[in-house]
Amino acid sequence: MTTTPSNQLWLYDTTLRDGTQREGLSVSIEDKLRIAHRLDELGIPFIEGGWPGANPKDVQFFWQLQENPLKQAEIVPFCSTRRPNSTAADEPMLQAILSAGTRWVTIFGKSWDLHVIEGLKTSLEENLAMISDTILYLRSQGRRVIYDAEHWFDGYKQNPDYALQTIKAAATAGAEWLVLCDTNGGTLPHEITEIVKNVVLGTEDWGLGTGNTEKTLTQSPLPQIGIHTHNDSEMAVANALAAVLAGAKMVQGTINGYGERCGNANLCSVIPNLQLKLGYSCIGEHQLNQLTETSRFVSEVVNLAPDEHAPYVGRSAFAHKGGIHVSAVERNPLTYEHIQPEQVGNRRRIVISEQSGLSNVLAKARSLGMELDKNDPQARQILQRMKELESEGYQFEAAEASFSLLMYEALGLREQFFEVKGFQVHCDLVEVKETTNSLATVKVGVNGINILEVAEGNGPVAALDAALRKALVNFYPQIADFELTDYKVRILNGNTGTAAKTRALVESGNGQQRWTTVGVSTNILEASYQAVVEGLEYGLLLHFQAEKALKV
Amino acid sequence: MTTTPSNQLWLYDTTLRDGTQREGLSVSIEDKLRIAHRLDELGIPFIEGGWPGANPKDVQFFWQLQENPLKQAEIVPFCSTRRPNSTAADEPMLQAILSAGTRWVTIFGKSWDLHVIEGLKTSLEENLAMISDTILYLRSQGRRVIYDAEHWFDGYKQNPDYALQTIKAAATAGAEWLVLCDTNGGTLPHEITEIVKNVVLGTEDWGLGTGNTEKTLTQSPLPQIGIHTHNDSEMAVANALAAVLAGAKMVQGTINGYGERCGNANLCSVIPNLQLKLGYSCIGEHQLNQLTETSRFVSEVVNLAPDEHAPYVGRSAFAHKGGIHVSAVERNPLTYEHIQPEQVGNRRRIVISEQSGLSNVLAKARSLGMELDKNDPQARQILQRMKELESEGYQFEAAEASFSLLMYEALGLREQFFEVKGFQVHCDLVEVKETTNSLATVKVGVNGINILEVAEGNGPVAALDAALRKALVNFYPQIADFELTDYKVRILNGNTGTAAKTRALVESGNGQQRWTTVGVSTNILEASYQAVVEGLEYGLLLHFQAEKALKV
Repeated sequence: MTTTPSNQLWLYDTTLRDGTQREGLSVSIEDKLRIAHRLDELGIPFIEGGWPGANPKDVQFFWQLQENPLKQAEIVPFCSTRRPNSTAADEPMLQAILSAGTRWVTIFGKSWDLHVIEGLKTSLEENLAMISDTILYLRSQGRRVIYDAEHWFDGYKQNPDYALQTIKAAATAGAEWLVLCDTNGGTLPHEITEIVKNVVLGTEDWGLGTGNTEKTLTQSPLPQIGIHTHNDSEMAVANALAAVLAGAKMVQGTINGYGERCGNANLCSVIPNLQLKLGYSCIGEHQLNQLTETSRFVSEVVNLAPDEHAPYVGRSAFAHKGGIHVSAVERNPLTYEHIQPEQVGNRRRIVISEQSGLSNVLAKARSLGMELDKNDPQARQILQRMKELESEGYQFEAAEASFSLLMYEALGLREQFFEVKGFQVHCDLVEVKETTNSLATVKVGVNGINILEVAEGNGPVAALDAALRKALVNFYPQIADFELTDYKVRILNGNTGTAAKTRALVESGNGQQRWTTVGVSTNILEASYQAVVEGLEYGLLLHFQAEKALKV
Repeated sequence: MTTTPSNQLWLYDTTLRDGTQREGLSVSIEDKLRIAHRLDELGIPFIEGGWPGANPKDVQFFWQLQENPLKQAEIVPFCSTRRPNSTAADEPMLQAILSAGTRWVTIFGKSWDLHVIEGLKTSLEENLAMISDTILYLRSQGRRVIYDAEHWFDGYKQNPDYALQTIKAAATAGAEWLVLCDTNGGTLPHEITEIVKNVVLGTEDWGLGTGNTEKTLTQSPLPQIGIHTHNDSEMAVANALAAVLAGAKMVQGTINGYGERCGNANLCSVIPNLQLKLGYSCIGEHQLNQLTETSRFVSEVVNLAPDEHAPYVGRSAFAHKGGIHVSAVERNPLTYEHIQPEQVGNRRRIVISEQSGLSNVLAKARSLGMELDKNDPQARQILQRMKELESEGYQFEAAEASFSLLMYEALGLREQFFEVKGFQVHCDLVEVKETTNSLATVKVGVNGINILEVAEGNGPVAALDAALRKALVNFYPQIADFELTDYKVRILNGNTGTAAKTRALVESGNGQQRWTTVGVSTNILEASYQAVVEGLEYGLLLHFQAEKALKV
């Protein structure tokens, strides 16, 4: 490991700007405010909020943030240098970032000669003047400046002298951070290492000492180096680490790696790698263990399904299968886990699967707060029942809520909130490609009362779901907050075609939590229906458990 | 870049073994056979098929593959060393992998002293004997051996001498490949570089030259080094590259990075990084441009949504937003793209450009035996129709029969064997867990005659299928030979739960051939119905084409 004079690194989050470039991601001003405050709590020192010159919603965002400011973090607007042959003071874009009222601003400029000539259609000298003028102007307005060197690595590979001139212009004008960007995401770690080392050595020779008067966030009179990477070669995180090991002191990235094309460096992996494995200091220890929750919070706010297989913060990141393996993990976790999941606020999860033995059942019971002994006949009954259901095609790996209900039932603890008496579904399609009508009727018993309800839907499962909710919501008003967040169907024993068994997985949510249930039948509607019914039951169970906990 | 005597690397795919450890992924034997043949076409030299000793389904898989063998690739079974204090020849697990009838086998053993003592509860010496005996026995049975050194990097960091003894035992017994595994996925690239370099240097000193008599796949009398990485630190691909640059000659990984916890090294990123950026030779150029299609094929077969943001092969990997950027990309793509998307069979996607995708259409037409010119207006019509359908959620990567019908229609060559006029489905479930009744009515026109038929089934789709066949079999007796061989359902836009759009894929067969069709609707029954109807139509088309060919 490279030794550095200090192990302090500065994180720079761009979820709210580069992250929102991800295809399919869109956020309101309200969403952005919630995320900014959450990143502040996580201890991120720089949070890029948007590009007020390019996007009117971002102007609003910065104004609203002034009314309800962050506690620790610096909120930073993002903008390009002035245009060719103009004056910085006359640029409306620069006025927009000044009106954001922040202490710091980020300016990006061109590093690659080809982009200057072909993209900006200006001279190499004018590009240097654009960088210099813009930063001098912002300094004159009292702003501290981070300079993002766009297409740095591609530019440096083509014309290193010119690329170096651009960041020297930025540093001389008073930029305190020079951030090297792998904008196209094509650079590999060994190239990053070499180039960043050259730049770090180069800036030491410049003998600068100007401009940096208020040293709250930098520790050297020289501009420091930052790194901004993209994931087009699946190298964003590795490249960020390579740059840090070569001397970079700032890492830019996004929560969950959201970003254009294949995304940005994923801070949820960058932070634990740097802090737990390389001994750098990024955020506090009590903040690091908020990482998993922050990851899920952001994915909820931007309404994207969390990546269950994400390193460190994914639901499967510390999941273990198989009987012998499980008992070994419980004896000595570090032989099977690269870090302790609690360090990043995640948890070990024993996966209930075909191979699972008794030790899996006991571990699972423990995670539900039930202490079962391995000699307890109930433990064997649960295992027996689970195996019977698995041989029928049920699968509990991804349906923990259904498994919990199964356990409560085996232990005689399952509450009957309602009883389904039957359903009917009718679908009618008169001309292919025209809308079909689906109508569902359900009969449900609650507290000895039978309710008969009917509802329509886009399809038969939606109609069934609607009819069930209609029947139950008067008894359990919290059902109005439940929603079906995902629905998956798999046909078992594919060889028998449409007569085969169907397994439906339904994910439900109540705004805070999500849970998954499973149903199996030869009838796709019945399988779906079973999973929808258990989803409602488990949601009610969570509700009443939370209510009990509050009363205690 | 490290220079090596040869730029040839060997890929080893473990999608069918380690990949299937991914939580939520399950595959049938039929699925595994389809994937194995596809990987063979991609040019992967080693394909790990499963662990026959641990899983009876895997025994079947290897037997079925003997009847329909791969063209180029070596199919490899996976197994552990013999147990402590037993004899290799008496191990049922080793008999199971011998009965797989392959030329190569992979044996994994323990490298980490702690795992030997705590996990296996045996002595360090016995573990060496287990490795040695197992490999000697397999060599005596004519097998060539790849040795996977489990927990290699963690073991080496704790006790390098012992770790080296384990692979030396494997090499001395005749293993031709020593694969260093980062089983827990916690190692960082700079550690990989250092340790792999040490191992490569170390093996050169062993002076081995035994055992390796048939040199079709290795080029040196010494055992060669391989690398097997996991993604728990988001470093699987970076670590694989670091190992190659340090001298490893085999890379193990999976398609789409599927694997336990956070997954394995993603071959869809590993291959283009090595081949396009580092100049190594892994697969043929005409195979590299099948990469995107292979990635999507595998995700369809295992029924997981493709990762749209995946490097190289994701739908967003080369997506460009409108404006100046677009014309700049079109003028000089390499200023905004790290590689040419066509090199990996992907495509640039620009909202305003109709041009993109035309080459896909032409390529698919060619694969169906139709030579279309890119200036042919029909080619553009097909593209247009395909884009409309894709925006509705259709997807033709795994549904080539539906795509063929679409093409025939656009070219005015689609024959109308029958016309569906409508359907009704009724399902009735009186008591949960009792059998449901599903009844379907269809109205179909053939040669100007309307047929109304009704049938029952195990579920609504089976009932629909039965009613359709009943209606058509008198006109087309060959329908009696058709069967539905697989049926998969995926919910699109998961966030809207059961009201979301459904995509059904139906695979049909006639005893000789199999074909796949697709349907999309908010109603799961209509989506299934569309795919079933097209499956019958395409089967009839194949029948009449074959009849015509016989007459000619």
